[in-house]
Amino acid sequence: GTGADNDLYINQAVVFIEDAIQYRSINHRVDSRSLWLYRWYYSRTCQWILSLTITIILALAFIEKPSSLTVTSDVRYRLPAWNPPCGLTESIELLCFLVFVVDVSVKSYLIGWEEFWKNKWLMAYILTLIVSLTDWVVSLSFFCTENMRIRRILRPFFLLQNSSMMKKTLKSINSTLPEMASVVLLLAVHLSLFTMFAMLLFARTKDGQQDKEWVGYFRNLPDSLTSLLVLLTTANNPDVMIPAYSKNRAYSIFFILFTVLGNLFLMNLLTAIIYNQFRGYLLKSVQSSLFRRRLGIRAAFEVLSSLKDTPANAQQPYVSVGALLQVLQKVEMDSRCKQAILRSLKMCSCDQLSAAQFQKLFEELDKDAIKQHPPSPEYQSHFMQKMQFAFGHPYFGYLGNVVALANIVSICVVLVMDADKQPSERDDFFLGAINCFFILYYMLEMLLKILAMGLKRYLSYPSNRFDGLLTVILLLLEISTFAVYGFPHPGWRPEFMGLLSLWDMVRLVNMLIVFRFLRIIPNMKFMALVVTTLLDLVKNLRAFAGILVVVFYAFAITGIMLFKDAVVPLGNTSSIIFQGKMWFHGSLITFRLRLFTTYLLSVNLICRWAKIYFVAWWLISSVIWVNLFVALLLENFIHKWDRRCHREPVSDVEYQRTVELMFRDVLEEPTEEELMEKLHQHPHLQLCR
Amino acid sequence: GTGADNDLYINQAVVFIEDAIQYRSINHRVDSRSLWLYRWYYSRTCQWILSLTITIILALAFIEKPSSLTVTSDVRYRLPAWNPPCGLTESIELLCFLVFVVDVSVKSYLIGWEEFWKNKWLMAYILTLIVSLTDWVVSLSFFCTENMRIRRILRPFFLLQNSSMMKKTLKSINSTLPEMASVVLLLAVHLSLFTMFAMLLFARTKDGQQDKEWVGYFRNLPDSLTSLLVLLTTANNPDVMIPAYSKNRAYSIFFILFTVLGNLFLMNLLTAIIYNQFRGYLLKSVQSSLFRRRLGIRAAFEVLSSLKDTPANAQQPYVSVGALLQVLQKVEMDSRCKQAILRSLKMCSCDQLSAAQFQKLFEELDKDAIKQHPPSPEYQSHFMQKMQFAFGHPYFGYLGNVVALANIVSICVVLVMDADKQPSERDDFFLGAINCFFILYYMLEMLLKILAMGLKRYLSYPSNRFDGLLTVILLLLEISTFAVYGFPHPGWRPEFMGLLSLWDMVRLVNMLIVFRFLRIIPNMKFMALVVTTLLDLVKNLRAFAGILVVVFYAFAITGIMLFKDAVVPLGNTSSIIFQGKMWFHGSLITFRLRLFTTYLLSVNLICRWAKIYFVAWWLISSVIWVNLFVALLLENFIHKWDRRCHREPVSDVEYQRTVELMFRDVLEEPTEEELMEKLHQHPHLQLCR
Repeated sequence: GTGADNDLYINQAVVFIEDAIQYRSINHRVDSRSLWLYRWYYSRTCQWILSLTITIILALAFIEKPSSLTVTSDVRYRLPAWNPPCGLTESIELLCFLVFVVDVSVKSYLIGWEEFWKNKWLMAYILTLIVSLTDWVVSLSFFCTENMRIRRILRPFFLLQNSSMMKKTLKSINSTLPEMASVVLLLAVHLSLFTMFAMLLFARTKDGQQDKEWVGYFRNLPDSLTSLLVLLTTANNPDVMIPAYSKNRAYSIFFILFTVLGNLFLMNLLTAIIYNQFRGYLLKSVQSSLFRRRLGIRAAFEVLSSLKDTPANAQQPYVSVGALLQVLQKVEMDSRCKQAILRSLKMCSCDQLSAAQFQKLFEELDKDAIKQHPPSPEYQSHFMQKMQFAFGHPYFGYLGNVVALANIVSICVVLVMDADKQPSERDDFFLGAINCFFILYYMLEMLLKILAMGLKRYLSYPSNRFDGLLTVILLLLEISTFAVYGFPHPGWRPEFMGLLSLWDMVRLVNMLIVFRFLRIIPNMKFMALVVTTLLDLVKNLRAFAGILVVVFYAFAITGIMLFKDAVVPLGNTSSIIFQGKMWFHGSLITFRLRLFTTYLLSVNLICRWAKIYFVAWWLISSVIWVNLFVALLLENFIHKWDRRCHREPVSDVEYQRTVELMFRDVLEEPTEEELMEKLHQHPHLQLCR
Repeated sequence: GTGADNDLYINQAVVFIEDAIQYRSINHRVDSRSLWLYRWYYSRTCQWILSLTITIILALAFIEKPSSLTVTSDVRYRLPAWNPPCGLTESIELLCFLVFVVDVSVKSYLIGWEEFWKNKWLMAYILTLIVSLTDWVVSLSFFCTENMRIRRILRPFFLLQNSSMMKKTLKSINSTLPEMASVVLLLAVHLSLFTMFAMLLFARTKDGQQDKEWVGYFRNLPDSLTSLLVLLTTANNPDVMIPAYSKNRAYSIFFILFTVLGNLFLMNLLTAIIYNQFRGYLLKSVQSSLFRRRLGIRAAFEVLSSLKDTPANAQQPYVSVGALLQVLQKVEMDSRCKQAILRSLKMCSCDQLSAAQFQKLFEELDKDAIKQHPPSPEYQSHFMQKMQFAFGHPYFGYLGNVVALANIVSICVVLVMDADKQPSERDDFFLGAINCFFILYYMLEMLLKILAMGLKRYLSYPSNRFDGLLTVILLLLEISTFAVYGFPHPGWRPEFMGLLSLWDMVRLVNMLIVFRFLRIIPNMKFMALVVTTLLDLVKNLRAFAGILVVVFYAFAITGIMLFKDAVVPLGNTSSIIFQGKMWFHGSLITFRLRLFTTYLLSVNLICRWAKIYFVAWWLISSVIWVNLFVALLLENFIHKWDRRCHREPVSDVEYQRTVELMFRDVLEEPTEEELMEKLHQHPHLQLCR
């Protein structure tokens, strides 16, 4: 019936607008039931469950068998880790797999059969699930005693496939690979030619005294290759050249040539290539997001314009305001935006909207969220007004900074004086008294500022929130210290009482004071610029960080699987090996960019596999990832720096800028033809015209 | 008289055109005698003498007293260095100073009194000379026994002031300093805050077993600062965190935060800032060169147009072709360009030239030097033609590459097999026989190529010249080997004879073969691109390298002066110190980017001055210079990469591209008004109009 049709159109429009808001693709099924399923799938609860499942399955590695989530990392001292019984982690895993099965089925159904065959990510998802489930069955049938668990290495895939940003970034990295491979090939040629040179240059001589270089670094082909590879990471520079250099200064030419060509030229060439490839990356990704948004809005317009209550108009399609209001009621979106759209709808006071007007209404979505700070309270008394002027003035803030600096300096002085004292000789009176005084000042400052600005206005500045929170914590700590240990007096060295010793309390307070000193950042122009650049970068880096987590996880799991037998906890000679083990576990949770270089030197003894593993690790984590990071930083920073001059700082108004907004004046609006062409290619939506 | 006037105008025009060719400023005196002096000063001989003087005065450091130009650098083994008698180096120095005095007087005279006062470089030059001469007198009056020799530190200034490129670059670097200083300040804040945190975190505890971290790295303020500074260079990562990490894994968070913020963010921010500043540097410098060239040509036109034999023309100034021919005869320029200009003069067959025509004639100077390879010989016999086809074909070159690769592989195999053999067990027969065969093939290849291409055409390709030269050297070496040691046979281990042992001869041959393998570079597209980029970079980097030499020289001399007393050659404990000394001398001639990090660890014991010296050294040589290098590499590479796609490779024609030409399509031609305005500002030239 017409009513049912109208309902369908309204629902389609709602979903399309939600797609536009979330920058999602609109290429999904559009019948009533699918739309319901679609909205359910993308509802906050469902997506939250999915994210939780991914987190849980990734976190399983911390409690699974060869793990070591213990406080100390030293194999000699730590207690045996808790060993979950067979079946516990496995049943959690099964639950996760079931969620993923539901996820993949819903996703496949929603995009439709034809699209499914074109979507390689979905196919890979299904394949991964099949392999994981098979591995799970094998695992259970061996009662968890089998060694290889392929499904663990596959786990990060679930993280990867769930983020469209990460998939896009991966595609981008993929397109840079051929050129990176060329440079890596060049590096390999460089390395092998110089290795041959080195072996000819530092050959064994008849005089045993003379060939220290040969004994130490160039004994045979693998040794020479390793020495020069480590020199490429600069970890054994200048040790590797010292024996030869002692013999004859001219030998240094070889090492200098190698370092200059390899480190200065080839390594930086890699940076240049990656930067060159990623120069347009941010802009392109923002541009495609904009296209998706415009497309969603346009699709909503098209379906609404085919509503039956619209008068047939051959010339131009129109959308009635009533229908739009109906849609807006159902759409889930930021309430500020919704209000703004409704306001402009009222202001326009027309009955029907053309495509351009419709598009224009939703431009509210792209706008900066302008945050107005609440006004200061208005005091009647003359005295209060003077107080307000004095303590609301920026100079009062600067005074606070100076006091904070004085506090830091005083702590520093005490630290220097106490550096070599035995803990039993230490007198906590001086620090205690000083800190007590400073914390009182901080409290006073906070209260006076609240008095001058009013609580609401005070809290609306992030720097004040940071400041206030730390001041309150410091105050609480100080009060509890005095409650437990009494007031400070000369020779104040009470015994240990309660949770923390006095010394620990004082240290904690001092650390918080040092941390609080960061409040000066917004007051220094260049620092503020740097910090905002870094924050922007962190936002843009989420996808990269995700991929890094994927790579780290896969490497850590592989490392654990490969080297778990290398751990022989007792015995002096194996200390290197179990230090190695220690690091593998560490790498589950930490970045360690130069870890490799230490290793290649120590692992030398163990086996070739370890060497290959570490070289791969170094190439991916240190060389490629760091260069990607540098490329993004350059891109972000140069953009920000160029624009710094153009913008006037508006007082009392804060713009909450998103990445999209940073590029706004460079972005191209998609044309009507592009949008319509894309709409006509939609696999499930049949437009009337 | 008119004739003398005309002669003066002709001479002025000659000098202006020479200025244009050399991209020199035209702001110098223009009377007859000054012009003669100017041409004499910029003559090849004079400039060569000046360069030689600078080289000599810089090279003096290698033979002066605390130097050590000995083969070995190890203080324990080396013979005492030659000690020149007092007065020898000093008289050489005096000669150099006299040359500089002449240089500065001529320069000052030529630019004129008024300009002299504006020129800070000239003033500094005179000041440096005065200080140096005073120091020299003091030195002689003490009979060379005084300790401080300030003039040595000032020496690199003479290199600096003689190159306009270096002065320009220095100005550029200077303008980046404020922003670099901001980042360095940020780094300092970062370092000091984290140092305080570290001292609070890793304080001394009552249990002696627990504070390994405190004992090793954070004993007091200077120790903590040093530990974290070295961590910033990543030299002591991960050693510095191991003790704390063994105690509690959570401590790693501190080190990771420090490294990520410091190394990943702040250090790369420095790269970004420097890159951002230098992005337009190359283009700007090329643009100003172009302006100087156009200005010189225009000035020549203006003076020629005021010649008396030109018919007075109120409308537009003209230059007669006869005058231009007279000028061209006198100008010293590339004969190819001169021929081309004369050719186009003949073709135009007009009597008078307008300013535009005049300018256009000299555009020949900007053009690519097109190098046409000479044709192959034409053989009559059918057999010879077939031979020519076969051996002139690129496939024959590829076959040569494959053979060279096979040779490399065979050498590699022998090296691996012989790696652990005692020198006395080694049998040179195998390598000797193989190399003999391969070298014969290389000779045959060379001869056949010459046959096919003709000697001239063969030599016109740089790759063939490289190849041919190495082949001839290899052949000579092989023949001399056979002449001395006879032909190879199994068990070929003759005694030492002649200059080199057989083993050394074989090694030398092998190294040359490895080196010859580089002939494959032009055959691989990406490699060729990279190599040409690097060569371009080297050209553009000359100014930077010069500044680097200046900085290195000053640092090395300061280092020698500061630490010469630290050398105590006998005694075991001082080994660190004299290793240090060894490195100072080394730094006179070598780059050593990470030298610092090793030092800061070992020098710890010596004194604070050493620490400050090394931190400054690290900041300048490693951080700032490397970043400048990266910036230039990025700039060059991205430019080249973008343009790679646009150009079609033309067979048989080679363009000899200069930096100016790389930017040709981006450069802006200066307008007539700009040129005339600049000409009217000339301090010595009065134009008639």
